[in-house]
Amino acid sequence: MERFSGLVAAPFTPMNDKGEVQYDRIGSYYDFLAANRVVGAFVNGSTGEGVSLSVKEKMRLTEEWARQAKSKGTVKVITLVGGTSYVECIELALHAQEQGVHAIALLAPFYFNPPNAAQLVEFVARVASSVPNLPVYFYHIPVLSGCYLSMFDFLKEADGVIPNLAGIKYTHEDFMDFLSCTNFMHGKYEMMWGRDEAFLSALVLGARSAVGSTFNYAAPLYYQLIQAYDRGDFVTARQLQQQSIDMIRLLGKFGGIATGKAYMRYIGLDCGRFRTPVQNMDETQYQPFCSAVQSLQMETLFSKI
Amino acid sequence: MERFSGLVAAPFTPMNDKGEVQYDRIGSYYDFLAANRVVGAFVNGSTGEGVSLSVKEKMRLTEEWARQAKSKGTVKVITLVGGTSYVECIELALHAQEQGVHAIALLAPFYFNPPNAAQLVEFVARVASSVPNLPVYFYHIPVLSGCYLSMFDFLKEADGVIPNLAGIKYTHEDFMDFLSCTNFMHGKYEMMWGRDEAFLSALVLGARSAVGSTFNYAAPLYYQLIQAYDRGDFVTARQLQQQSIDMIRLLGKFGGIATGKAYMRYIGLDCGRFRTPVQNMDETQYQPFCSAVQSLQMETLFSKI
Amino acid sequence: MERFSGLVAAPFTPMNDKGEVQYDRIGSYYDFLAANRVVGAFVNGSTGEGVSLSVKEKMRLTEEWARQAKSKGTVKVITLVGGTSYVECIELALHAQEQGVHAIALLAPFYFNPPNAAQLVEFVARVASSVPNLPVYFYHIPVLSGCYLSMFDFLKEADGVIPNLAGIKYTHEDFMDFLSCTNFMHGKYEMMWGRDEAFLSALVLGARSAVGSTFNYAAPLYYQLIQAYDRGDFVTARQLQQQSIDMIRLLGKFGGIATGKAYMRYIGLDCGRFRTPVQNMDETQYQPFCSAVQSLQMETLFSKI
Amino acid sequence: MERFSGLVAAPFTPMNDKGEVQYDRIGSYYDFLAANRVVGAFVNGSTGEGVSLSVKEKMRLTEEWARQAKSKGTVKVITLVGGTSYVECIELALHAQEQGVHAIALLAPFYFNPPNAAQLVEFVARVASSVPNLPVYFYHIPVLSGCYLSMFDFLKEADGVIPNLAGIKYTHEDFMDFLSCTNFMHGKYEMMWGRDEAFLSALVLGARSAVGSTFNYAAPLYYQLIQAYDRGDFVTARQLQQQSIDMIRLLGKFGGIATGKAYMRYIGLDCGRFRTPVQNMDETQYQPFCSAVQSLQMETLFSKI
Repeated sequence: MERFSGLVAAPFTPMNDKGEVQYDRIGSYYDFLAANRVVGAFVNGSTGEGVSLSVKEKMRLTEEWARQAKSKGTVKVITLVGGTSYVECIELALHAQEQGVHAIALLAPFYFNPPNAAQLVEFVARVASSVPNLPVYFYHIPVLSGCYLSMFDFLKEADGVIPNLAGIKYTHEDFMDFLSCTNFMHGKYEMMWGRDEAFLSALVLGARSAVGSTFNYAAPLYYQLIQAYDRGDFVTARQLQQQSIDMIRLLGKFGGIATGKAYMRYIGLDCGRFRTPVQNMDETQYQPFCSAVQSLQMETLFSKI
Repeated sequence: MERFSGLVAAPFTPMNDKGEVQYDRIGSYYDFLAANRVVGAFVNGSTGEGVSLSVKEKMRLTEEWARQAKSKGTVKVITLVGGTSYVECIELALHAQEQGVHAIALLAPFYFNPPNAAQLVEFVARVASSVPNLPVYFYHIPVLSGCYLSMFDFLKEADGVIPNLAGIKYTHEDFMDFLSCTNFMHGKYEMMWGRDEAFLSALVLGARSAVGSTFNYAAPLYYQLIQAYDRGDFVTARQLQQQSIDMIRLLGKFGGIATGKAYMRYIGLDCGRFRTPVQNMDETQYQPFCSAVQSLQMETLFSKI
Repeated sequence: MERFSGLVAAPFTPMNDKGEVQYDRIGSYYDFLAANRVVGAFVNGSTGEGVSLSVKEKMRLTEEWARQAKSKGTVKVITLVGGTSYVECIELALHAQEQGVHAIALLAPFYFNPPNAAQLVEFVARVASSVPNLPVYFYHIPVLSGCYLSMFDFLKEADGVIPNLAGIKYTHEDFMDFLSCTNFMHGKYEMMWGRDEAFLSALVLGARSAVGSTFNYAAPLYYQLIQAYDRGDFVTARQLQQQSIDMIRLLGKFGGIATGKAYMRYIGLDCGRFRTPVQNMDETQYQPFCSAVQSLQMETLFSKI
Repeated sequence: MERFSGLVAAPFTPMNDKGEVQYDRIGSYYDFLAANRVVGAFVNGSTGEGVSLSVKEKMRLTEEWARQAKSKGTVKVITLVGGTSYVECIELALHAQEQGVHAIALLAPFYFNPPNAAQLVEFVARVASSVPNLPVYFYHIPVLSGCYLSMFDFLKEADGVIPNLAGIKYTHEDFMDFLSCTNFMHGKYEMMWGRDEAFLSALVLGARSAVGSTFNYAAPLYYQLIQAYDRGDFVTARQLQQQSIDMIRLLGKFGGIATGKAYMRYIGLDCGRFRTPVQNMDETQYQPFCSAVQSLQMETLFSKI
């Protein structure tokens, strides 16, 4: 099965002033990620506003990203086909397979919450079995999906039932659960860390791959963090993790997830605004935001355009 | 604008053993509701598993229900076009309008939660403005959508901004908020009560319409409750409300929302099972369930097939 | 057993500028409640800041209130002896019994949450059995105690096990649970409604007694509401309930529970401030608060000093 | 100020069959901790059932533990004086000071939740200023206190206002917040890690001290984990952390916090049962529990009696 070692970015979806997707910018976005040594693109995820897109838009985005990967090959593509209807997830999965993506990912259905691991496995299995040759990652993000089931329980229930289950994108801070999953069946499943602000605490548990939104604009920071960790220089590693935290804290200060697009604009790759119901920064806040970013003094740690 | 006075049922979606929608049964379902004096059908809602259907399936269901209403006319149709993407909601709204539904309804987007009433209004307004001549109801169901914003705040923000906003289907137990909405602008907005188990407590606040799942199989119970209330016979009204509660308590005991389909099977209108991730009763539980229902001794209160 | 029919106020605890309890003001507070036809005083509750007082202070307050009741007799006294340690609850219960209170009340322990009704009953039973001749009320207020167990389940488990259980002060908005408790064993247990803003919705279910904080300063409003309900004048009843809501909404607007003491100051019975960690209104907000109260135009509905 | 480097255990409170505290066993408990190289005892905490004890019992326990420390000196004593009433907290703090404890700790008040960091600081400051020469630790355990305020915000607000604030016992899994606190003012405040199951992830962030319940019965496991981490042997460190997790998972499987006392009985230091409302294992479950513990094959990692 395909494996990702390194940083996988969850790309933002570029939009114009009317909130329409700018598909023609995916090519340069792809090159930008490649140039910053990002190894994968997690398409239509939370950062990419997958849930705010229509089925058609999601399919079109998958096509564009997959086409880039096919012709250029450096950055692998995982596309999120998750939703609340397994019928629609299967449509998206089959479409993604046709486009030649490297893997798909599935969310817990987020309206009717699965009441237990068995029910979650049944949902995932229905979709996974429609594309038996494609690696499937489960995307665990309870704060948004509302599904707080233990992933260790999920793996125990899924193992042997979902043959193409490849791993978990783990966007939650439960290290007991995370380490248990990492060690399950001698590391059979790839655990991709999803909380950039606690990356060092996952590295020490053996994580080697991660999916994040800040890898879009600050990949160098995290590669330096990995290097410091690998050479046993924890003082530097902690300092870099703190810089990542200071950077991420500005998201909270300036209004949340949409601030990620403000960072993209800051580094020179303007992706427009988030669609409602996500709240965007007022235009008047953008200059104060830039000043705040500058005061972090981390210009060398941002991705290069 | 269209108004609903009386009981609006949220129909279950009939499915066969493979979990496929049985569109050809909508006609008889419509007749059944009409025969039980139900005044409206709230299509593709929570009870109807709207989120578990694909866009195509939702459109097809809307077509079938609207076709019935057009030819028979007794039961009005509201169709839920809500979701997480306003682009897709607009597609569904335009389609619903073409089919000639009486009204549409919208949910709060349930992945990215609107952070305040203004943002929720922006989301609803985008969709509502695409069908300016169609009444729009907001469907407030925080326990599933995760959006606990005050509806009184929502109305204050929406009034004047969403001209075709007709009212709220209020599936939450906050009577302070509910009464405030009822009295807002001298009753300008239709407040449809959505918690069947507390219907009497809403009647006394002036509610005259309600949307519910138990109106599918126990419409007579609630019409008797309304009559008892109207003639000031509160002893009978409380007794009927208690019977409604005893009936609803079996849902909790036998596993949740899917038990509604067990009630439908019990009265003779089998709609199959709920799609995963909703958990269905084991077949072995069905007989104990039937015994429990019989011990409620409320046969005359169930809808007649 | 003692029964309360009518309005039971949960008195505020009068404090001086240093945050010390002013025991010598209980006498006039008692007379004030009596003059406004309040039938009971629920001492050391949430409104009375019981949890912010020391054991000694709580005992001293119970003594003062009980002494008033003994000599004057019009207003009955229930004192809350609840806490997280049953050993300490028993100390408080025995002390309360010695003072001759009419009843005691118990909270769910609010640090270690009881995992089920059986465990909650065990906790309550230990304390109740130490004062077998005193009526015991369970004080259900999940939003503060964190205990969301069904009271219907609690009663089923407690019945026969806690002989002196007299009823429940029900400060929660779950009318299915409330009506089920009301009807349990043909009304064996007294259900005292605790959400002033939804009083009318409880009256229609048969509630005849209530415990509240706003009965301190707006008893006339609620007595008029009861009268309107009793004569079947629901238009007036709803209007009064709306006025209660408008009054209560100012609590939210001006910062929460401490605003209750601002209302007391407004009507002329200044009780000082709430102890930290409850946040009090800034002194600069007091005039805007008074203006807001005046604009409610409900002077005749406030308690008379 | 006093500093703790190493493992601080939160002792269980030994009780007899009647649920009475066995004060005469504190001496041998103290020796047991010392023999297992535990550097501190966190008395009257969650593990010690502080909230289930009366004020008198808490004082008596503090006296016993402090007396041991005074005469033997190897294990330092921190005693939790936290509660919901600052008046009572001050009584407990003054008493603790008289007994000569090394430090006190304070919880967020857990009935009325502090609405912001300023209000929490006001609460803590009132108590801390009553014992200006005693180090004060804030005990952050949101899952029980309900206070989810950021500790980084707390420190920013407290710094300069609470001169004897020494640090935080951090029992929560928010590594962004934890690292920010660790780095605040160049490490001015001692951050004591409180989630044993994620200890390795805190070590890599620089944590050198920890407070936990499992250090009572498995101190050797964690000292070996520290050693493995210190020599850069992360494979062994992860394996030990996994063993800690497997041990802790049995708490969940056998019913929660009370299972800690079952572990104590297993290693030979029976402390009786938890007081209600905490649920204890049925006696019939004890043998299955012992079998489950034996199958963990970690006998050499348990504390020696």
